[in-house]
Amino acid sequence: MIKIGQIDLIPIRDFPVVQVGDEISDIILTTLQKSGLELIQGDIIVVTHSIISIAEGKLYKLDEVKVSEKAAKIAERIGHSQERVEVALREASDVLTEEPVFITKTKHGIVTDFSGIDSSNAPPGMLVALPDDPDESAKRINDSLTETTGFNVPVIITDTHGRPWRKGAVNIAIGVAGMSPFTYNVGKKDIYGNELRGSLICLADQLASAAELLMGQADEGVPVVILRGVGFDEDDGSASVIIRSESEDLFR
Amino acid sequence: MIKIGQIDLIPIRDFPVVQVGDEISDIILTTLQKSGLELIQGDIIVVTHSIISIAEGKLYKLDEVKVSEKAAKIAERIGHSQERVEVALREASDVLTEEPVFITKTKHGIVTDFSGIDSSNAPPGMLVALPDDPDESAKRINDSLTETTGFNVPVIITDTHGRPWRKGAVNIAIGVAGMSPFTYNVGKKDIYGNELRGSLICLADQLASAAELLMGQADEGVPVVILRGVGFDEDDGSASVIIRSESEDLFR
Repeated sequence: MIKIGQIDLIPIRDFPVVQVGDEISDIILTTLQKSGLELIQGDIIVVTHSIISIAEGKLYKLDEVKVSEKAAKIAERIGHSQERVEVALREASDVLTEEPVFITKTKHGIVTDFSGIDSSNAPPGMLVALPDDPDESAKRINDSLTETTGFNVPVIITDTHGRPWRKGAVNIAIGVAGMSPFTYNVGKKDIYGNELRGSLICLADQLASAAELLMGQADEGVPVVILRGVGFDEDDGSASVIIRSESEDLFR
Repeated sequence: MIKIGQIDLIPIRDFPVVQVGDEISDIILTTLQKSGLELIQGDIIVVTHSIISIAEGKLYKLDEVKVSEKAAKIAERIGHSQERVEVALREASDVLTEEPVFITKTKHGIVTDFSGIDSSNAPPGMLVALPDDPDESAKRINDSLTETTGFNVPVIITDTHGRPWRKGAVNIAIGVAGMSPFTYNVGKKDIYGNELRGSLICLADQLASAAELLMGQADEGVPVVILRGVGFDEDDGSASVIIRSESEDLFR
């Protein structure tokens, strides 16, 4: 299933600033055309969540956020913005730790700092939250691109997040459509002919990390990357299946 | 620092089966030449640890492993091979959990299942362990490639490992030489001109994950991948600095 050709990571340049109400798939198609790029069968599209959140209006105006007593207390204890803590609490189902970093579990079940709430890549005076249903957002773009091109174009929506035991954030998949997020090695053999123990690879997270090499996090403005030449299973996948339930929290 | 060109992931095909005592850098150069490939300035070489371990003789013969009482008890409890548990204990500084998966902290400080001990990609009848000092192994290859090409060729040595909170393993960097493992965004601005909060990206782990897209874990035999077009800081980096100390174990 994994093909052994070259893989290309292709940035979509000159992506316009996204506005509330925009259709991301339309902007992708228009910007591709302007860049002289064409999608081919097998391409995967990776999109940073911030432009999805903005298009979907998942924004909080800083000066309209009513800060609760609880948020004010946490913000004082950890020395962070009251508004960011307040919005993080609203988007969280659970607070895991307050210090050294304010880590929550979001309503989607994603464990990340400040529920993914950020002022970077947000319009001035705003905080940007994660999309309400990133799998659904991915499906919407996947459907639209597939309809236009005539073949399945899988879509991955990403966020960068910190990790236990390892320093530095990496990009992960928070929304997936048009492909399985996993690669299964069951039944495959290694170069010595040994059957591989059944290992499960999180392909979607690895694709997210690969795309981040081009996205960076700064003003280069590369919110969308094409991954060309990757082998994948064309299942009805989602990113929510990547998340472990409480009882499986360590490794399985 | 992050360049906005295309990034290419290039597999080195027809890599020979590595033997104990081989010089990996020599095999890389020979195999590149046979494939008609040439390294250019800016290329990063990613190598799966198993061929390094084999070249360095970090192998255990299954029928020569003397199983301790402790290992036998754990193996029985968790229903795994006694030899694999025994070797995992020898390579570990600490056992974190036995079930649902046997997770240890290796002597390098890496948290992974069975101390990274594997029978996949090991010669028949053998178990392959992690290299004793993967940063040193990377430096050795980096030095040799740099001497031959006349420019710095950073090297990353990888292993796949499971993660808390997320299903499916991903490839990570266990050895780094010739580059910083991190990208720092401090002082950069987003598309709106907002100063980015100081975020630290683990570039080396993202490069490892990108390379795994070609390595797979099966018999395609792609233990070495060239990453072309990635921006990096040419520091004297290592992978050991990615590991969090005990006191920082969650997020920072």
